Amino acid sequence: MSGHFAIHPWKVIQTGFDPGEQRFAESLMSLGNGAMGLRGNFEEGYSGDSLQGTYIGGVWFPDRTRVGWWKNGYPAYFGKVINAMNLIGIRAAVNGETLDAGGMKVQDFYRELDMRTGILRREMTLITRQGKVRLTAERFVSMADKALLSVRLTLTPDHPAKVELTAFLDSEVRNEDSNYEERFWEQLDAGACAGERCAHLVSRTKPNPYGVQRFTVAGAFHAQAGIPFTGREVRAGYVALSFSGDVAPGGAALIEKTVALVTDRDVPPEELADTALKAAQTAAKRGYERLKAEHAAAWARKWETADVVITGDDAAQQGIRFNLFHLLCTYTGEDARLNIGAKGFTGEKYGGATYWDTEAYCFPVYMATAGATVARQLLLYRHQQLPGAYHNAAQQGLPGALFPMVTFNGIECHNEWEITFMELHRNGAIAHAIFDYVTYTGDGSYLTGQGLDVLCGIARFWAGRVHFSCRLQKYMIHGVTGPNEYENNVNNNWYTNRIAAWCLDYFLEACDRSGQKRLDELRITESELERMRDISARMYYPYDEERGVFVQHDTFLDKELIPASDLPASDRPLNRHWSWDRILRSCFLKQADVLQGLYFLGHLYDLETKRRNFDFYEPMTVHESSLSPCVHAILAAEIGQAEKAVELYHRTARLDLDNINHDTDDGLHVTSMSGSWLAIVQGFAGMRTAEGLSFSPFLPEGLDSCSFRFVYRGRVIRLEMLRGGVKLSLISGGALTVKVWGEEHLLADELSLKRGKT
Amino acid sequence: MSGHFAIHPWKVIQTGFDPGEQRFAESLMSLGNGAMGLRGNFEEGYSGDSLQGTYIGGVWFPDRTRVGWWKNGYPAYFGKVINAMNLIGIRAAVNGETLDAGGMKVQDFYRELDMRTGILRREMTLITRQGKVRLTAERFVSMADKALLSVRLTLTPDHPAKVELTAFLDSEVRNEDSNYEERFWEQLDAGACAGERCAHLVSRTKPNPYGVQRFTVAGAFHAQAGIPFTGREVRAGYVALSFSGDVAPGGAALIEKTVALVTDRDVPPEELADTALKAAQTAAKRGYERLKAEHAAAWARKWETADVVITGDDAAQQGIRFNLFHLLCTYTGEDARLNIGAKGFTGEKYGGATYWDTEAYCFPVYMATAGATVARQLLLYRHQQLPGAYHNAAQQGLPGALFPMVTFNGIECHNEWEITFMELHRNGAIAHAIFDYVTYTGDGSYLTGQGLDVLCGIARFWAGRVHFSCRLQKYMIHGVTGPNEYENNVNNNWYTNRIAAWCLDYFLEACDRSGQKRLDELRITESELERMRDISARMYYPYDEERGVFVQHDTFLDKELIPASDLPASDRPLNRHWSWDRILRSCFLKQADVLQGLYFLGHLYDLETKRRNFDFYEPMTVHESSLSPCVHAILAAEIGQAEKAVELYHRTARLDLDNINHDTDDGLHVTSMSGSWLAIVQGFAGMRTAEGLSFSPFLPEGLDSCSFRFVYRGRVIRLEMLRGGVKLSLISGGALTVKVWGEEHLLADELSLKRGKT
Repeated sequence: MSGHFAIHPWKVIQTGFDPGEQRFAESLMSLGNGAMGLRGNFEEGYSGDSLQGTYIGGVWFPDRTRVGWWKNGYPAYFGKVINAMNLIGIRAAVNGETLDAGGMKVQDFYRELDMRTGILRREMTLITRQGKVRLTAERFVSMADKALLSVRLTLTPDHPAKVELTAFLDSEVRNEDSNYEERFWEQLDAGACAGERCAHLVSRTKPNPYGVQRFTVAGAFHAQAGIPFTGREVRAGYVALSFSGDVAPGGAALIEKTVALVTDRDVPPEELADTALKAAQTAAKRGYERLKAEHAAAWARKWETADVVITGDDAAQQGIRFNLFHLLCTYTGEDARLNIGAKGFTGEKYGGATYWDTEAYCFPVYMATAGATVARQLLLYRHQQLPGAYHNAAQQGLPGALFPMVTFNGIECHNEWEITFMELHRNGAIAHAIFDYVTYTGDGSYLTGQGLDVLCGIARFWAGRVHFSCRLQKYMIHGVTGPNEYENNVNNNWYTNRIAAWCLDYFLEACDRSGQKRLDELRITESELERMRDISARMYYPYDEERGVFVQHDTFLDKELIPASDLPASDRPLNRHWSWDRILRSCFLKQADVLQGLYFLGHLYDLETKRRNFDFYEPMTVHESSLSPCVHAILAAEIGQAEKAVELYHRTARLDLDNINHDTDDGLHVTSMSGSWLAIVQGFAGMRTAEGLSFSPFLPEGLDSCSFRFVYRGRVIRLEMLRGGVKLSLISGGALTVKVWGEEHLLADELSLKRGKT
Repeated sequence: MSGHFAIHPWKVIQTGFDPGEQRFAESLMSLGNGAMGLRGNFEEGYSGDSLQGTYIGGVWFPDRTRVGWWKNGYPAYFGKVINAMNLIGIRAAVNGETLDAGGMKVQDFYRELDMRTGILRREMTLITRQGKVRLTAERFVSMADKALLSVRLTLTPDHPAKVELTAFLDSEVRNEDSNYEERFWEQLDAGACAGERCAHLVSRTKPNPYGVQRFTVAGAFHAQAGIPFTGREVRAGYVALSFSGDVAPGGAALIEKTVALVTDRDVPPEELADTALKAAQTAAKRGYERLKAEHAAAWARKWETADVVITGDDAAQQGIRFNLFHLLCTYTGEDARLNIGAKGFTGEKYGGATYWDTEAYCFPVYMATAGATVARQLLLYRHQQLPGAYHNAAQQGLPGALFPMVTFNGIECHNEWEITFMELHRNGAIAHAIFDYVTYTGDGSYLTGQGLDVLCGIARFWAGRVHFSCRLQKYMIHGVTGPNEYENNVNNNWYTNRIAAWCLDYFLEACDRSGQKRLDELRITESELERMRDISARMYYPYDEERGVFVQHDTFLDKELIPASDLPASDRPLNRHWSWDRILRSCFLKQADVLQGLYFLGHLYDLETKRRNFDFYEPMTVHESSLSPCVHAILAAEIGQAEKAVELYHRTARLDLDNINHDTDDGLHVTSMSGSWLAIVQGFAGMRTAEGLSFSPFLPEGLDSCSFRFVYRGRVIRLEMLRGGVKLSLISGGALTVKVWGEEHLLADELSLKRGKT
């Protein structure tokens, strides 16, 4: 780690204060509970450079865009994750001086995020004009109650001091990335009750011209302190309760703030303030320590099925736990209307709450670590957004359902046409997640139930989007952007054509497994199915006979084909050094494209095909998407390139901890965090589930062992990779058959295998 | 014409007032003198819906864009034509009521733009609470003095009335299309002198973060009226002189306002106010009538070489004169720093001052109607912007010069990457204009002089932009947008590849004709020329053997190829009814693409080639660019499809007068206006100049005659197409040989030819 950060298997530790690291540290020290979350901002405020961020799941704003004003079908707005009211604020003053690490000398700074318990703790000494003041702050966003957040702050002056502590909520906040520097919130109600030591604030997202739902949120808090209450302040967008008193040298002033946040997504608007107030008061009565214990217990339950243990490499251990911690902060599966934002609750960049990342990269992680119920919530999210997906297709003049590249509500809200209009392959990932779920869980009822609705919309979209080339007597898909976003508007992207045909095949299979009644409900006719069969049978796939590889798109082989290793280091990353059009014309891949198909549909391709394509494409891949290394690591492991697999794993495991892309200041790459788990589980351990449970494990050099737990069809299983062998343990649930290195074994209790003849 | 507009050979006449027509009428009634211009706004103000527009040549603002924030090489701003201070304003009140056609009943409205003299005159009667008031207003933007504008306004009440007239300048103006609703002007200085009846206003464009030049402009006016002077008003951004007096029924109050406008493009900033004041006062002393006569005489001189006379069809006559009038208003060739904006001085839409339209469509018109000196100014404009063109290429990581798609100063300022980065063919049109100039004028000195600088930059760009396909052993150009903007990011666009190779050829020819000294100056080496020869010789051109046509780009023939006539009428225009991506995937052409090449390089292709390609592409062309019909009309005439030529001529001749694209409210399609002249001169008359002067004239059905004048190598020539024949007259200059219908003739005085054996 760089700067003042230390390696620790369970903690993120910051051992000193540097204003230049503040945004980076704020990102790392984020907390969340699936329903809300916040960056590691200081409770007492900070006048230096900082990205203030409090985010509420499902609460967003359609920011005006100016892009593409004359292009029909273009999204009118860009949906933004919005910075919501400051919940943690406790202003602190000593002898009239407001404590502020931005303006005062800081000594003995220490901060740690305990990932085992989800508790953030900070200690520091500030030098005021009259002496030193020790400040300790501890907080957590309750994993036991999604509306709750608790803060405890203590001031210890080394001199006789008058201490003032003001706990507040502040809704006069901004988004840094607001397109027009507009504010997204308007203020509705504010109040404070001195007797109850309570205050509340209600605000609502501003009106918008797009008919997008507005959100009302209410925050409330109870505060109690070891010094006397002195008053309240109430104005639009701000409420505060103040405490003030004299503290002797070495004595301490402590304040506890119990905050509740509710939204009209769950509570009728007229009841919001009361609900929040009641929740804050009830929680405060139970006491800080009890809330904290309940919160830590909820975290412990999560780790029981999710933990990955690496011995022999603490940096790797910290990396995977850090990634799992933030994935678990971002999504809990309790609310099927929520999803996994690209930055989770750690930043405002990228907008939208949902990318294809969810299905392509995150879905398997949640399914294995949190179980089938949580995974099913992710599928239901798309199911309930089907109307939006039909709307998106209609905007393009097409039948069926086109799931959005970026959305909050199912309607596309991204504002670059090469993505919105072209990156159609997202539809494939959404169908694939259904396949993944059905094969993993064995739950066929989803396939013929809600799954069929989704697959039908997707299949109809593809059937409407292809055209027939008279010249080649094949179906084609023109004008797409594949997963490799370093090309736009290409024709016959192999991956897109392949996943489209696979979607049709899988829908046809789902129809076969569904009763006629379901087909009638969806008005599926035999002639429609016949056309889909024809499209799948006569889909065009660019192929290079000479090299025996699938060709990325029609004219890819006309490019100048050079390995990325020939690029001068000063040109990397290309997206910072090359003009966009030069990137587009080059052969260099941002991320897996053909290989993404061989990953998703791995059960349909043999090892030699994977090897040839990997050897052709990976050397031209610059991995400038944080989603890139994991897919390559998995394939490299499969084709026996262990060293390459490990190298690529390292690029995903500590992406944010080591600030590898130099943009962790903006927030964490939450959806990419799944990549390190995928690389370990599907890569090193070779876990496959498309055709029963199988593994092909190897322990990377430099590790003593690596183990992980996962949920599989009602069981909790632990797999431990050891030097030259593997140990499988059935933690709970009934015996089952697993395939390891190609051979079937019964896992009843424990199973230790040595790597055999291979 | 629609609404209250009448056909007249020399005038645009509006015979009634309809608020719904106001923006449209304002566009038609625009005036300009090459240095400034304004829309047909009312002098006295208008409270109804209106687009206020006063525009000053070369004065612009870099408006912030949010597009493409993560794409390197992307223009940071979008250059805007800016609405400048209101120069014509004369507020008028009668018995305390401010005259306003937006709020009062209007009777007997009549307005005419006399295109012969460039004078706009309006008469109307307004019904006030106390009686009727007749208002007449006349104005012109002086073609004799580029700084001057004169207005005369008369009020005639039919009842005893106290009349107040307030002449003013107002710089607190806005652009409707400001991206962030920002104002573009800040106010510097204002003053008024009661004794001299003069006032002035100085404003400057606001600061910008792009290092773009700021502009300071000063307006000044002198006012005199038939009623007593009553006072002045001076505040930031506004100055006024007021007159007030009693007028008896049937009596009249007249005011004359003489306005001068100067900018720091011509005058040092500290002298601006004085210069403007002096100019206004000096002009006022000469008197309104004299200024008007000088202005009308300047217009008469323009028409002497530019007029096109059509007998037998007044609508066609009005159409071509209207187009020529506005082309002459927009550009005079006096200032090589100016160019031809897409909307001239008639609206703010599209931004930029210069498109490839200038070279591709306007250049031949100005060269023939205004002469070689004016044409050379257009070439010099690009020459002086070479540093910007080198900058643009460098932004893309390429050598040489890439002229901008849209610019004010040579640096690209458009903000859609599919245009900025991809529509590279503009470089070809700029080289072609040099070829056009050299062959038309016979002035070879330009080619080896400044022309060589430009051609060298262009050739180096193309040589850097191609890549070599190992597969096909050919040079290729990937990732371009051809002239047909209904496709983006295609590979090997035939037109782009062809014009690129032609640019290399023409540069090589220019090098042959230049001395070694020039080559040394430009550091042109033999190996560089050798590489260019190789690229030209081995350029890849997609070709369809079966049809014998050039293929628009690599995969065009894989599209579903259907004629535009199969499209339902309700789908047209496609750009209003289809999603952008559907348009991109379709076969339909917005405008000439392959055919643009056969037009530019017509001397290199035989008639059969043109016919085959025309017959293949034109039926798929929807002509949704106003630049489309003329090129097709010219080619149709050439291949003998007279009816098609005439049909396409009609789509260009009255585009704005008949509001065919329903967007004339925004301003006139100034650069497209050249299309009707091209269709007549290069189409009907078949004028060609690449290899000497030749014609192949035919008179369209329905016309009695059609004649035009043009300047050619020091001569003024008139050509008249008659039924079955043609008459050529040498108005001035020495005898010359011309080719008509393939046969050479000596034109010494007059030449009457009957259509012969063909």
